[in-house]
Amino acid sequence: MGDLVDIIIIGAGPAGLSAAVNALTRGKTVRIFSNKENYLTKAEQVDNHLGFYHVSGKELMDKFKEHAEAMGIKIEEGMVVNILPLGESFMVNINGEIAESKKVILAMGISKIKELPGEAKLLGSGVSYCATCDGMLYRGKNAVVWDQSKDAWEEANFLQSIGVNVTFISKKPQPENLSNDIKFINGSITEIIGENTVEAINTGNETINTDAVFMLRDAVAPTALIDGLELDGNFINVDKHMETNISGLYAAGDITGKPLQLSKAVSEGLIAAQHAALQIDKEEN
Amino acid sequence: MGDLVDIIIIGAGPAGLSAAVNALTRGKTVRIFSNKENYLTKAEQVDNHLGFYHVSGKELMDKFKEHAEAMGIKIEEGMVVNILPLGESFMVNINGEIAESKKVILAMGISKIKELPGEAKLLGSGVSYCATCDGMLYRGKNAVVWDQSKDAWEEANFLQSIGVNVTFISKKPQPENLSNDIKFINGSITEIIGENTVEAINTGNETINTDAVFMLRDAVAPTALIDGLELDGNFINVDKHMETNISGLYAAGDITGKPLQLSKAVSEGLIAAQHAALQIDKEEN
Repeated sequence: MGDLVDIIIIGAGPAGLSAAVNALTRGKTVRIFSNKENYLTKAEQVDNHLGFYHVSGKELMDKFKEHAEAMGIKIEEGMVVNILPLGESFMVNINGEIAESKKVILAMGISKIKELPGEAKLLGSGVSYCATCDGMLYRGKNAVVWDQSKDAWEEANFLQSIGVNVTFISKKPQPENLSNDIKFINGSITEIIGENTVEAINTGNETINTDAVFMLRDAVAPTALIDGLELDGNFINVDKHMETNISGLYAAGDITGKPLQLSKAVSEGLIAAQHAALQIDKEEN
Repeated sequence: MGDLVDIIIIGAGPAGLSAAVNALTRGKTVRIFSNKENYLTKAEQVDNHLGFYHVSGKELMDKFKEHAEAMGIKIEEGMVVNILPLGESFMVNINGEIAESKKVILAMGISKIKELPGEAKLLGSGVSYCATCDGMLYRGKNAVVWDQSKDAWEEANFLQSIGVNVTFISKKPQPENLSNDIKFINGSITEIIGENTVEAINTGNETINTDAVFMLRDAVAPTALIDGLELDGNFINVDKHMETNISGLYAAGDITGKPLQLSKAVSEGLIAAQHAALQIDKEEN
């Protein structure tokens, strides 16, 4: 397990980077994780973030990253699959590696993830978001891997290589490098079936018996990341300090709701980090 | 009276300029007024506004102004002395000139102005914030001018020139260019006295009979600008759209409270302007 840091930030877009910069200016240690390119980089032109006129989203993200890097912040590659509040601190599972921090800031951007029927109920009972975390539990058993991220085929190969009997389901054509002994189905999953543990999945066309389903997305839905997190519609509910209903857990940026704007994300990252830093100072004095 | 514009913005710091930029990107017409240099320009170094590292406050303000100017926004010199809500629009008094707009955004920064005892009660009944607006009412009468802005002596001279009998009170030495026939007192005002209209002021040392008091500050306290504006402590109370308790009147930036940070001001200017623009669109369709 890594050293205890002050603040773990999940997501390295405008909100996450603003949080990191502000945590550092308040003398706090941070780790910041990201596993995908921020979609700001795809914006052709941004005109309404004060101080930057007629710039591309990519130029802006480059400026933001330069600022963070100039302060010594390193963005780590990794998808957070679970967050466990322990009262005084949090255990954060990043692709199976456990990190610990006093506060956590969620800044993953807008969540387009819809949970499947059965997913929440069977999470940890056959439903997994992380092949390297849970693969060993299913050696000699059947597992379905649902391809919703660019690296899913690698994880499927990993599972197969440790002795799991893998079926790979994808909307896209069969990946070139998918192991030959993995069964490939072109399609998707509409439902996860099971009483206490996963028993089968439904593709819409057929029911396939399985002991496990690996949902390999680019991100985990916030409510699946952490138990009991309160939402407001599709967004995370926060107070004016950007703190969620779980003490010490903050959210900032598009993930907290409209307007889905750069200036707001930068501001909320600042507010979350400054408040988290202040709380740490209070708790330690 | 000027043409009806969509949005009048009071203050041209980070919040006001962000509001102006965002109003324009939403196709709205704006006028933006300022009568002092933003105090950001005095910040030696700013490190925590994402995208700008190791810059001076002046460099930042220059960038912000460049952005606004590139979009054709012109900052007008002027102090707002009164705002009158008319239901569908607002009448805004800028140094005696009346402008009209559908929405108003207050972005004057943190207010350090303390109202004097008697000031609120006698506002409009002898207490005035604007010599050019109300001077003619006191021809042939006595008026005290309280110097709290760099141009107060000019307004005192104006009042004397139109036939008001002026006493000039200042903590600073007598201004070089103050008219010779104006009585000068070195000191300040501690209280305004009067039942229905101003009768006298108290300097702490003496009571001076007068018909009017011109409070010539660099800004007017928000609660004196507009009747019935709700505060939260020293700050203006706003909802999540940055709208105050008065429909169509918004506030953004330091004036709404902590944290008093650049990133927050820029975000709040955006939120206020985008919401105001949306309301205008709704009301017109």
